[in-house]
Amino acid sequence: MPALTRRFVLAGILATALCSAVAGPVLAQPDPLPSWNDGPVKRSIIDFVAGVTTEGLPSFVPHPERIATFDNDGTLWAEQPVYFQFAFAADRVKALAPQHPEWKTVQPFKALLEGDIKAIAAIGEKGLLEVIAATHAGMTVQEFHNAVLDWIATARHQRFDRPYTELVYQPMLELLAHLRANGFKTFIVSGGGIEFMRPWTEKVYGIPPEQVVGSSGLTEFQLQPDGALVKLPKVEFIDDGPGKPVGINRFIGRRPVFAFGNSDGDQQMLEWTAAGGGARFMGLVHHTDAEREWAYDRKSHVGKLDKALDEANARGWTVVDMKRDWLRVFPPERATGGRALR
Amino acid sequence: MPALTRRFVLAGILATALCSAVAGPVLAQPDPLPSWNDGPVKRSIIDFVAGVTTEGLPSFVPHPERIATFDNDGTLWAEQPVYFQFAFAADRVKALAPQHPEWKTVQPFKALLEGDIKAIAAIGEKGLLEVIAATHAGMTVQEFHNAVLDWIATARHQRFDRPYTELVYQPMLELLAHLRANGFKTFIVSGGGIEFMRPWTEKVYGIPPEQVVGSSGLTEFQLQPDGALVKLPKVEFIDDGPGKPVGINRFIGRRPVFAFGNSDGDQQMLEWTAAGGGARFMGLVHHTDAEREWAYDRKSHVGKLDKALDEANARGWTVVDMKRDWLRVFPPERATGGRALR
Repeated sequence: MPALTRRFVLAGILATALCSAVAGPVLAQPDPLPSWNDGPVKRSIIDFVAGVTTEGLPSFVPHPERIATFDNDGTLWAEQPVYFQFAFAADRVKALAPQHPEWKTVQPFKALLEGDIKAIAAIGEKGLLEVIAATHAGMTVQEFHNAVLDWIATARHQRFDRPYTELVYQPMLELLAHLRANGFKTFIVSGGGIEFMRPWTEKVYGIPPEQVVGSSGLTEFQLQPDGALVKLPKVEFIDDGPGKPVGINRFIGRRPVFAFGNSDGDQQMLEWTAAGGGARFMGLVHHTDAEREWAYDRKSHVGKLDKALDEANARGWTVVDMKRDWLRVFPPERATGGRALR
Repeated sequence: MPALTRRFVLAGILATALCSAVAGPVLAQPDPLPSWNDGPVKRSIIDFVAGVTTEGLPSFVPHPERIATFDNDGTLWAEQPVYFQFAFAADRVKALAPQHPEWKTVQPFKALLEGDIKAIAAIGEKGLLEVIAATHAGMTVQEFHNAVLDWIATARHQRFDRPYTELVYQPMLELLAHLRANGFKTFIVSGGGIEFMRPWTEKVYGIPPEQVVGSSGLTEFQLQPDGALVKLPKVEFIDDGPGKPVGINRFIGRRPVFAFGNSDGDQQMLEWTAAGGGARFMGLVHHTDAEREWAYDRKSHVGKLDKALDEANARGWTVVDMKRDWLRVFPPERATGGRALR
């Protein structure tokens, strides 16, 4: 090889090495889902993602149409013994009680203030909405945002003595990241309050506020004193059950190709996803692990999974058996930075 | 210089050149807004974008908070002599007339079928909503999506004899691209129907459906026969005036730092944007060019600009004088591919 040629070869090798250092070397891919045990469930996810991202396959889905929707309560984070937003509302009742002396004698506020477990358990949906309305309205959206962040930074779940944002599912965090690394836009589609989730979903899940769909109350624009949106005590939209496809259509405007839930409230979201053409993934988290988390399904008041489980089994949707399929449930302590959210 | 050193120097130069070829060479930046005439308006845009993207400046805005919202009718595309969605609805009336013999005798349908200009001009907001409800409901969202794409691909604006999607403003297309190149997420926030815009905004503006906020009707999920969302003849949300900050909060969940409109219906969106902390840009398109487009403001039935113009002048918001500030108005014919949208 003449010297000049050698120089160019050397230059080429160095250039390649330097460019790789800039662009990142091509290595064997590490397992994108290390917290999922090997088996048909993990395989169904890996295969689906490979199928929609491989050009030329009939399962290929163009980049902009890679929409993935996830329920939140019971799918991305825990929901027992009560929806975490209800724990927030109960703490708000205590914080606001001095301004509401009448709550000492009026249910369901009395039960919450006295910690009367039996009476709290008896609070029906109507009482729940009353508590939400009384504690989530009459302030600006910015004030509510701050109240949520204060609570998220300080409140701890009794059973695990950890911040609520550490009770997210590590396998689902990995799944969200794997989807995004493959060109998916990940959305939350939850029955929970949209303004309860948005302040922290970006830091905890990597999902920005504009990709969070949820239930909402009415707001009103008031120019004085400083251009504020004030929360009104009136429900505007319930993003649950048949409301989920409606909410997806309203907020996202495309049908998802990938959807994950855990309860009957997610059934119509999965049906709407399944009814589209081409490759589809429908998944359910089945809570089967009383030791590491909780075990509940058909009889549970929170996150009831009954009809959707039958449909999933009948139609061959992916059902995660938490005990069998997840190597770990929650992230290591502090990993999600629950205390560092402010 | 020893030979080996020379080789490494050569290798370094080549590596740099090759890496540059991969990453793109660093050249003097071309003008990002070639269709804007030089002057204070163009300068205000360029300076604002430079300010929010320069770390260390007090005007710096972190990447995820770079939210820009644009009205559509009269801001991104033309709106005279009638909102283009109304032209669509009128064409739908003609297409659906065989199934509605009663329309021959009932206003406002009679006027539209007969092309009775005087009677059409007299159709008030109530009549407009009647026409929209009758022509936009009773079908699935997918069927409506297809009807919009059919119309967009074939209908032509009378004055210009061009597809409606070619009557978008070239300077605003450049502005959208300039913002996105600087880390902004661009949204439409329009009083127009969300499902009338979403089928074509990605191809025409580079704005995907999930970044379109607009007025909407109720939909209902029906599992049979094939998991469809059906449009109901009932207004759900009017995204206009004080509804714009409400819609932005509901759909995006963050306050914009950059907002552009053209009428009194955009006033509250600009006020809501202005009321945030830090760097802010509020802009209005003032239609002053009867020759190339239209000239209208305080007395116009379509896109009335009166109170918002006073407020913009009083508060020093940017007001585009179309005749003075835009070198060209519309893109070259066919550039937006109006006919290629299917």
